[in-house]
Amino acid sequence: MKFARFQSGGKTLYGVLEGQTIVRELTDAPWRTHKRTDRVHKLADAKLVSPCDPGKIIAIGLNYKSHLGTRQPPKVPEPFFKTPSCVIGPGEAIVLPREATKVQEEAELAVVIGKRCKGATKENALGFILGYTCANDVSERNWQKNDLQWWRAKSSDTFGVIGPYIATDLNPGNLNLAARINGRVVQEGNTNDLLHDVPTIIEFISRVMTLEPGDVIMTGTPGVPEDIKAGDTVEVEVEGVGVLSNTVKAE
Amino acid sequence: MKFARFQSGGKTLYGVLEGQTIVRELTDAPWRTHKRTDRVHKLADAKLVSPCDPGKIIAIGLNYKSHLGTRQPPKVPEPFFKTPSCVIGPGEAIVLPREATKVQEEAELAVVIGKRCKGATKENALGFILGYTCANDVSERNWQKNDLQWWRAKSSDTFGVIGPYIATDLNPGNLNLAARINGRVVQEGNTNDLLHDVPTIIEFISRVMTLEPGDVIMTGTPGVPEDIKAGDTVEVEVEGVGVLSNTVKAE
Repeated sequence: MKFARFQSGGKTLYGVLEGQTIVRELTDAPWRTHKRTDRVHKLADAKLVSPCDPGKIIAIGLNYKSHLGTRQPPKVPEPFFKTPSCVIGPGEAIVLPREATKVQEEAELAVVIGKRCKGATKENALGFILGYTCANDVSERNWQKNDLQWWRAKSSDTFGVIGPYIATDLNPGNLNLAARINGRVVQEGNTNDLLHDVPTIIEFISRVMTLEPGDVIMTGTPGVPEDIKAGDTVEVEVEGVGVLSNTVKAE
Repeated sequence: MKFARFQSGGKTLYGVLEGQTIVRELTDAPWRTHKRTDRVHKLADAKLVSPCDPGKIIAIGLNYKSHLGTRQPPKVPEPFFKTPSCVIGPGEAIVLPREATKVQEEAELAVVIGKRCKGATKENALGFILGYTCANDVSERNWQKNDLQWWRAKSSDTFGVIGPYIATDLNPGNLNLAARINGRVVQEGNTNDLLHDVPTIIEFISRVMTLEPGDVIMTGTPGVPEDIKAGDTVEVEVEGVGVLSNTVKAE
């Protein structure tokens, strides 16, 4: 199944895709108790927004060998936060902050939590997941390098791009992913190269922190991101989910 | 005025204090459109919870000279995130995670945002504030030192203590604050010693990040925090707000 969140008639609604062109409205978010309704919308008429509205976003640093460069692989997952107010959805513009000097895309597999979870184990971790989506963990490299912590480097408004759909029933351990700038491939990888896989990440985080339905985990980025600039179109594609496409503009 | 959030009859309600013993129920949160109701509760019967339920919490590192030790004072505010799922209120237990080895209190003045805010200036920043409360920015020092970023060091469940009230009409530039462990004073300071004052912090954050009503900014901690252990009672007091008291227990 693929879940979407969309605007129609001035309301923000949840739905489930039927085929390639129809979205059937749900009574509530797929991570809450919900039912299918008898209302259907043409996908072409629905303005998709970020498919979830997370209470927290935890991203994992240094989680692909191809992204490490000269850095040592971390012994445990290395989480950091992106704050929910930075989230945008498919088709929205990534806005380069006025004082930003080096902004890059990061293509990532994102996990959407389906059930409240504390103290998960590697063995039961996948059972707490609703599904998977694409994420662009937009990053300002000079702030990332020079600030005490990664706050504006990773969470300036519009730096958390999520969508277009939440796809269920995927194997998070074997999915191709890629980033393209203006159609040119700049990052390529497969989640079978994750240094810490999805069950390991969930076990590690949930030792100390309750994961809530709708929370998002961005699992890390492969390869070498590039600078993005105003006027660019940036796409993140995750196998089995779809393509998350955004333009870039100056503040 | 002092605003409270409390549980009564199975519901979580917002109220405003009348004198020392009565809380008058509001129709909604004080940072949203609300009215006073004709329902009053005895403060003694109301179970106070965290006075707000923030969408994000931004804390400021290294913001008192007395806390710097040998570190240089930062040229700009140094924000980091605490994730909302770590918030507890007055009277709740701070839980020491099983693998934590060095947990400390941090007494702070917390600012609660009242109006949506992007691009504030030092001159108009205070106009976006609803009020002030006490915060205990609980911190695990070994994780803070050794992890790539301060995620579990600052946001393990129960590490974000906020309350007891949101007090309006205070001058955030001249408030005494203190932390006590089992009645013994361990931190003392005054917000006139903040390296970056509240207007400067709000201007700096809101250059890149929208502050939303109910969001919380913890402004930094003075002096030298100490280790807390199971069985301790930790208090944070901010002049004009009150005392935020919590016990500490092992997981």
